[in-house]
Formats: sequence, structure tokens, C-alpha cells
Amino acid sequence: MRMVDLIQKKRDGGTLSEEEIKFIVTGYTSGDVTDYQMSAFLMSVYFKDMTDEEITCLTMAMSQSGDVIDLSEINGVKVDKHSTGGVGDTTTIVLAPLVASVGAAVAKMSGRGLGHTGGTIDKLEAIPGFEVEIPNDDFIRLVNESYVAVTGQSGDLAPADKKIYALRDVTATVDSIPLIASSIMSKKIASGADAIVLDVTTGDGAFMKSIEDAERLAHTMVRIGSLANRQTMAIISDMSQPLGNAIGNANEIKEAIDSLNGNGPEDLMEMVYVLGSQMVVLAKKADTLEEARKMLEASIADGRATAKFKEMIRNQGGDDSIVDHPEKLPQAKYVIEVPAKKSGVVSKMVADQIGIAAMLLGAGRRTKEESIDYAVGLYLNKKVGDAVQEGESLVTIYANREEVEDVKKVLYENIEIGKDGVEPTLIHKVITE
Amino acid sequence: MRMVDLIQKKRDGGTLSEEEIKFIVTGYTSGDVTDYQMSAFLMSVYFKDMTDEEITCLTMAMSQSGDVIDLSEINGVKVDKHSTGGVGDTTTIVLAPLVASVGAAVAKMSGRGLGHTGGTIDKLEAIPGFEVEIPNDDFIRLVNESYVAVTGQSGDLAPADKKIYALRDVTATVDSIPLIASSIMSKKIASGADAIVLDVTTGDGAFMKSIEDAERLAHTMVRIGSLANRQTMAIISDMSQPLGNAIGNANEIKEAIDSLNGNGPEDLMEMVYVLGSQMVVLAKKADTLEEARKMLEASIADGRATAKFKEMIRNQGGDDSIVDHPEKLPQAKYVIEVPAKKSGVVSKMVADQIGIAAMLLGAGRRTKEESIDYAVGLYLNKKVGDAVQEGESLVTIYANREEVEDVKKVLYENIEIGKDGVEPTLIHKVITE
Repeated sequence: MRMVDLIQKKRDGGTLSEEEIKFIVTGYTSGDVTDYQMSAFLMSVYFKDMTDEEITCLTMAMSQSGDVIDLSEINGVKVDKHSTGGVGDTTTIVLAPLVASVGAAVAKMSGRGLGHTGGTIDKLEAIPGFEVEIPNDDFIRLVNESYVAVTGQSGDLAPADKKIYALRDVTATVDSIPLIASSIMSKKIASGADAIVLDVTTGDGAFMKSIEDAERLAHTMVRIGSLANRQTMAIISDMSQPLGNAIGNANEIKEAIDSLNGNGPEDLMEMVYVLGSQMVVLAKKADTLEEARKMLEASIADGRATAKFKEMIRNQGGDDSIVDHPEKLPQAKYVIEVPAKKSGVVSKMVADQIGIAAMLLGAGRRTKEESIDYAVGLYLNKKVGDAVQEGESLVTIYANREEVEDVKKVLYENIEIGKDGVEPTLIHKVITE
Repeated sequence: MRMVDLIQKKRDGGTLSEEEIKFIVTGYTSGDVTDYQMSAFLMSVYFKDMTDEEITCLTMAMSQSGDVIDLSEINGVKVDKHSTGGVGDTTTIVLAPLVASVGAAVAKMSGRGLGHTGGTIDKLEAIPGFEVEIPNDDFIRLVNESYVAVTGQSGDLAPADKKIYALRDVTATVDSIPLIASSIMSKKIASGADAIVLDVTTGDGAFMKSIEDAERLAHTMVRIGSLANRQTMAIISDMSQPLGNAIGNANEIKEAIDSLNGNGPEDLMEMVYVLGSQMVVLAKKADTLEEARKMLEASIADGRATAKFKEMIRNQGGDDSIVDHPEKLPQAKYVIEVPAKKSGVVSKMVADQIGIAAMLLGAGRRTKEESIDYAVGLYLNKKVGDAVQEGESLVTIYANREEVEDVKKVLYENIEIGKDGVEPTLIHKVITE
């Protein structure tokens, strides 16, 4: 088999066999297939697309290119959740204990990642004592006993995906549905999930700008899951404004506690219930999404969700008293309000730019080397559709520096006040097949 | 300027500016643009094409990437000729002295090249004493005095083209009209021609399989020439069977002598007159193609063409007595006939496969390291449309080995005898703009 012939086959619109796709992925991982042949191949895929079967073969080949996590010692169906990216994404912190509280196993492996705020792992580290690097045996035991544990990603998962992603980034082949879908799914499959719930975000601040593209990506990933024997569901959600009100690490832990106590922001809670219901159904703890949602609502109402969060914190060495006393979480030195410059209705809050404002405070990292300040962040006092009076606070800044004009500038530039504003539809679609 | 943005621009169907194309070509030549970015760009060009202006910018940038030959000391219009590849391509050997004999300057720079037989340079070296490596001053003086000289390519012409061609070869981006056109034209322009005549071959044995593709390529190159201030004409010729009857080096020199004497094969002579007329018109030695053809026919009829060939051989140190005594050319040890296995009409002779049969004898080289045997080759006793009796010779093999079953096998497999056969149209089209 010669790589040049496979490039030509795809270039001419042909369908590659499983054997041919394996040749490409293993060859590229080992270095036998060169960067320049791979980039020509990726560009051909950009133009000629792939069938669901081809994307599945690509996904499986990438997922098997390095370590594959074995979670078979954990009882029941292991459900994982992935978001294609958002701002103020507190959902995972709420979902993990909530879903576990109704008996579904949540074995969550998370990266630290780059971005506006830290990853799930970083956010949990804002809790004093919380240990995210736990040995594999402990991880499996905790999930079997408590239905929930969260750990940092260990091992070399899907190195082919890492190498291909780096190449796509410099060869204008990032925005290709088959390549995005296989990249996401290969990592999820390598990390051992039996079932996967996907949150595909859309809107100005998201990777997929249009609902149509987001829908195609979601359908593609659900079909890959099904062909790869991983039951998969997805939602298409709006990310034109941040989800919830808190952005930051300690900030989002506090919002997660409020949510588990039944006092979460409406949009965040809706997202949690929709995604959570899918996780519960996939874990076979409920037959229908409606039944699952009722179970989750009941768990929050009677305190089981909060109790599970405390148990999860204790299990991983953290101080669970922060749940009742959130003031024990890292606190910022300065609390600064951002007053509205005129009266009206909030008509726009550009999600990713507001995320950047939080990153300027130190809530997230741009490069792997940067450290995170858990205490800092933003609290959105108003969201799109809310009326506001001149002088009233739009956003509260939690900072560890007195001078925050740069942050205010970004916020003012990206929050528009007009005559009217309509709260965007949060969830555009639920995709189950 | 970032290469990734230029890849994306072309990928999305945009038109690149002259500055952007220069950035790509000079960056790739210097190594600042990587192979993997270039191959993604080339694949984008494959899918999204280029405008005539873009192709011209690409051609000029490649032609200026290395040495540019200065032929300004040669009087008059310097006309070059290029063929996209054929079998039994004796035309250049006939054209050079013939066109010079009517007063048009032929300053021919030729490569050795790989293929079924040697390049023009190799063929001329079959003439005892003929020197193809002549100093630049001598080359210019000879053309000014005798209107003709042929020399091996010196210097580093269009290194960007060499590097890009090598990359295209392994990334399935060879068969792209803008890339083929710019590759050919960049070398012609760098070698100093004022005007260019192109023979675009088509048919099973040629690079361009369909007449439509060949026509698009020809039109594209003629327009590049015009935009680059090099008057250019082209013909679309058929290469489904070899041109002329001789294949080999000494063999083709002998056929060239016959042709200059007025005894050439009909198809070869037609090609010579059509291409030669274009060269004479571009060199401004005739106003119309008809007038030019009459001049060429007269030169052959009255012996001036043959005299010019003798002069050209003497000028470059060769033994011009071979023109009257072709038996002085290198002779093969074995002359073996290939008899027809049945009676009928020759219906097919696959050009490139018959070329391969000649290469098996040693007439051409597959790699740069191989040496050429000038004496060996083939003579086609029959061509498509000719009647043949069982046992009559189809081809004469000139070999320096006794055992030639491998060559016979290729010939029998690629010469079909049927009930009827129609001589193919030799020249499909003449393209002057």
C-alpha cells in the first residue's frame, strides 16, 4: 500500500477501507507517513468528506494509537460527557455528583486544558485538599463504592489525534466535520467510556458557528458512537452568551453548590437536567428521558445531590465543609462592580470575549506553563433579556489586582444595552440517533 | 503574512495576489514554508483551480527562483519548443536545423531527462564527436552565425519548480492544470525564450488522457505566455501510437536525416511542418502559417535543410559525414524481426508501452544513474491502419543482446491486429490564443 495512492483515492472521492485507514493512522503515528502526505490527505478529506463508516474507522484507529483505559472493573455502564467548548461551563461539576446520586456510574477523566477558565480538574482543585491525581485502583474502587470519581488524564491517550490536530492547525484543515468528529470521539473512546453524552455548542463564541454545522457534527458523532458500540446522545446548545452567571474556578464551584441545592441559574439548571437525563438513560437507570429528569429533580429537592457532592469531596481528600461554608473557598482581594452606562435591556453578551475578560484576571491559562488563580473571576448580574438601570451593576469582578481597567474595557465592548433583548433558545435540539 | 491563511484563502476559493504567490514560492524555495503546508496548498489548488493571472504569477515566481538565462545577445526572436511527452519524438532533431535553415534563431537548451529514449541531448550524442556541453559564449556566437545551436541545460533553472514537482509526485497533486502549466512555462521562461511553441500530446500514452484536458492545458499555457510577454502557440497532437517509425537514439537520428532529405514518415513530417510553421511565424520570418510552411517545404526540397544539419553538426565538433553515411552511426549487434501472428489490419499500437519495450533494450533510462545504449531501438514496419500478412514483420528490433523475448512480449501485448484500423487524427487542434 502506498500513501500517495490513498491520497489520490480520497482526492477522487473514493471510500477508504478499514485497512487503508489503519495504514494511514498507524503510519502517521510511527512516522512512516510524512507530514506532507498527511496534510495533502487531510485537505482531500476536507473537500471530499468521509462516510460514517470511514469516520468510525478513523476514530477507532486514532483511539487505539496509544493507551486505552480499561474501566471494565467498574460495574455497570460508564457514561462520559463532552462539551465542544463553552464559557462558564459549570455543568460537569454539577452533573458528576447529581448523576451519581441516582446510581449512574460517573468515572470522569478530565484534562486541564487551555482556555478562559481552568478545566474540570482545575476547578475541583479550588476546593482545599481536593486530590485529582489518584491511583487507578483507588479511582475504580471509588466509582464502584460511590458511583463517582474525577481524575486527571493519565497515560498517552490517542497520540495520533494529538499529532494530526497539530498538523491541522497549521494547514487550514481544522474545520472539517469528519476530522472534528473523529478527534473528539477517539479521545472519549480511548478513555474507556461505554456511553457518551455530547454537548455541541453553537453561536458566535463557539467552534461551530451555525446550527446546521453543529447538527451535522452531532449526528456524525452519534453515528460514530453507535457504529463503535458506544451508545451516544447529543444536544445542540447555544453559546452566544455564557452559561450560568459565574465564570472562574472557586466562583463556579460556588455556583455548582447553589445548583445542587436547587438554587442554580435557570439556564445552567436546564442544561444540567437535559444532559443529566441522557446520562441516566444511557446508564440504564431510567427508561425514558422524562423519567430520568424526574429522578434528578427529586435528588436535588431532597438533598441527595448535595450529599453526594460532599461524599465525592471527602473521598478525594477535600474539605467538604466548603459546601455549607463556600466562604472557605479561595477569596479574591478586590470586588469591583461594572455599572451600566445607560438604562435599557441587555441585548448581547459575547460569550468568548467575556471568557477572555476572565482570563485577563488569571482565571484561565493561555499556555500550559501559566498558573491559574482560583479566586478570581466574574459574576454576571445581568444576562441577555434582563432590564438594567443606568449605574446598576452588570458584572461583578473578583480580582487580585486593584487596577482592572483592561477587564472592564473588554466587558463594556462586549455587553450591549439596547431597547430590547430576547433570551436565546438554550437548547436547539436533542439528538439521540 | 501567514502561510496557513493563504492555504485557507485558496481552500475557500479565493484569488491570491501576486504578493501572496511570491510569498509562497520564495518561502518554499528558502524552506520558510514547510513541505506539509505546501502540500495542503497544492491540494487546495487541485480542488479550487487558479485564475490565469494567478497561474502567471506562479509561473513568473518559479521562473525567477533560480538562474535566468540571458539570451539578449542573440539577434532576433528566440523561439523555443516544448512537448508534454511522446514516444519516438524525433521532431526536435528535425525542427532545429529546418527552422534555422529559413533564418529563424533556434537557441535550444535541453535536458537529458528520463524516459523511453534519451532526451534531445542524448540523441545528438549518438553522432560521433558531437559536443553538447558548449560554453555560453560559443553557444551565443553559433546561434548568431548559424541560427542554430543545441546545448545541455546549465545552471540552476527554476529550483522552486523542481522542489514543488518532487512534492506533487508524492502527494497526488500532479494532474492539476494550473500546476502542470506553471511548471512547464516557468522552465521555458527561465531558459530565455522570447516565444514558445508547445506540443500538448493526448491519448492513452500521454499525460493528458482526454482532448478536453489537453485543450484546457494548451489554452492556459498560451494565455500565461501572453500575460508574461512571451508569444506562445500550441497544438494538440495525438499520441495514441508512436510518432514516426523509429524509436531509439541513433535510430531517430537516421530518421531525422531521412526527414530533412524529404523522405520522412508522413505523420512525423506533418508534425514538423505544423510546429515549424508556428516557430517561423513567432520568429517573425513569415507573416502567416501557410507562408511559413511553404518556406520549410522549399528548404527541404532544395537541400538547405540537410545542409544546415551538417553545419550544425560541424559547428559542435561532430562528424557530419554521418548525414550521407548513416551506417557510421552506432550499430546494434542483433537485428531481430517481430512477425505478425495473423493477417489483418493493425488496429492499435499503445505508444507508451512500445516506448517501454525500447527502454528494456537500453534506449532510455529509468533513473539518472543509468547509461544509454545509442545503438539499440525499434523500427515500426507497420502502423495503425496498415494491412499486414501473417509472418510479415511488424517491428524490427535493434538489440545488443541475443535474447529479446521480454521485448517481444511487450510488443505483442501492445500491438493489436483486427479486421480494420483507422489511422488516428494526428493534430486535433492548433491553438494560437
